[in-house]
Amino acid sequence: MAVRVDLNISLDGYATTTDQTPEYPFGQDWGRLVGPYVATRTFRERVLHETGGEGTTGVDDKYAEAYFDRIGAEIMGAGMFGLHNFPDDPDWQGWWGDEPPFRVPVYVLTHTPRPPLEMANGTRFEFITASPEEALEKALDVAGDRDIRVGGGPTVVRSFLEAGLVDQLHVGITPILLGRGINLWEGLRGLEDAYDVIAETAESGVVHLTFRG
Amino acid sequence: MAVRVDLNISLDGYATTTDQTPEYPFGQDWGRLVGPYVATRTFRERVLHETGGEGTTGVDDKYAEAYFDRIGAEIMGAGMFGLHNFPDDPDWQGWWGDEPPFRVPVYVLTHTPRPPLEMANGTRFEFITASPEEALEKALDVAGDRDIRVGGGPTVVRSFLEAGLVDQLHVGITPILLGRGINLWEGLRGLEDAYDVIAETAESGVVHLTFRG
Repeated sequence: MAVRVDLNISLDGYATTTDQTPEYPFGQDWGRLVGPYVATRTFRERVLHETGGEGTTGVDDKYAEAYFDRIGAEIMGAGMFGLHNFPDDPDWQGWWGDEPPFRVPVYVLTHTPRPPLEMANGTRFEFITASPEEALEKALDVAGDRDIRVGGGPTVVRSFLEAGLVDQLHVGITPILLGRGINLWEGLRGLEDAYDVIAETAESGVVHLTFRG
Repeated sequence: MAVRVDLNISLDGYATTTDQTPEYPFGQDWGRLVGPYVATRTFRERVLHETGGEGTTGVDDKYAEAYFDRIGAEIMGAGMFGLHNFPDDPDWQGWWGDEPPFRVPVYVLTHTPRPPLEMANGTRFEFITASPEEALEKALDVAGDRDIRVGGGPTVVRSFLEAGLVDQLHVGITPILLGRGINLWEGLRGLEDAYDVIAETAESGVVHLTFRG
C-alpha cells in the first residue's frame, strides 16, 4: 500500500490555473497545462470514454496508465470536485459525468458536507470534514492492499506532503510558464530529502519527475 | 551570432541561494544546486584548473562543454561578479582567481563603475552602467561572429529575457526545492511562446531544458 500523488504542473510550479471565463470555464491555460495528458490513449478511454483506441501511446501514456493502476481509494479537495465553483448547487456531481474515471470510493474534503453520491461504475463520492490523517485513515479502511491517491488540488496535496504522508509524488512538468495560480512547491523546501527523484522526458516535451519515498 | 544564457536552477526556480554564512560564503544550498555541474570534467579543467582529466563525462558534461563553446563576450551583473559582497574593496577581482574561465571580454553591469581589470588569459573585466540593449551593443562590437553569454545573476538574465534579447536559454534543473532566493521565472509568463523547448535528463538527476528561439 502506498499513498500516491500525480499532478500536472507548469515549469514554474503552478498546478491550477486562474484564467477562467464563462467561455472557458477551466481557463485556456488549463488546456495547455494538461494537453499532453489529455491526448493520451489512457485518458481518452478512461475519462472521455472513447472506444476507438486513439491517443498517444508514448511516455505520457505510460504515466497515465500508472495513474489509474492499483488505486483503491481517492482523496480530493472541495475545489477539485467543483464545490468552490458550484457551492449552492445541491445536484452538482463533479466534472466527470455519470461515469467518473475513479471507480473507487472518493473522499472529498469539505467544511460543508453533503450526502454521499453513488455513481454508476463503483465511484462513490463521500463528503467529509477531516484532517489529512483522518481522511487517510478512512481511505485505508476501504483500499485493502491497493494504493490511495491524493488527487488534488495543490493545496490539499501540500497539506499531505507537509504532514509526511505521501509515499510517491509524480509530477508531469509541462514546459510553459503560467506565472499565476497555486504553486505546488510553496513551503516545501527540502522535500527531496525524504525521496529518491527520478526524471524521464516524454516525446511531448513534458518532463516526468517521480519522488519515491 | 546568438545571445545565450546558461543557469543552474532548483526545481522551484531559484537560481541564487540565500543561506550564506561566514563559514559557507556561498551557502550550503549553493553546493547542492551546482553540484552536478561542478563535478563535470569540463568544470574541473576550465574553472578549477585541474589537469588530471577527472570529472563526469555524461550529459551534464556535454552541457558544460557547450557552456564555454563559441563565446566571444560575456555580460554579467554586479552581484555575480561579487560587488555586492565586497562593495568597498577596490582590489576585488571576482571569484575566479588569476585565470578566470571566461577568456573573453566580460562586461559587468554596475551603477558604480571602476577601472577595467586585465587578467592573465584573455579575460578582461569592464565595468559599465548600461541598459541590456546598450550592454549587448558593446558585447557585439567585440564578439565578432561568436556568441554572447548573459551569465547571471537571475535578475540580470530576467531583464534580458523580458527585453526579448535572448536567443537561447539553457537551464540545468537540479531536483531540489530551495524555497527562497531569486526566482528565475518570476514575471516571465508565456516566455515559451517565443521558443522551442527541448528537455534532456542527465545521469545525475538534473533535467536540462533548452529554449531555442
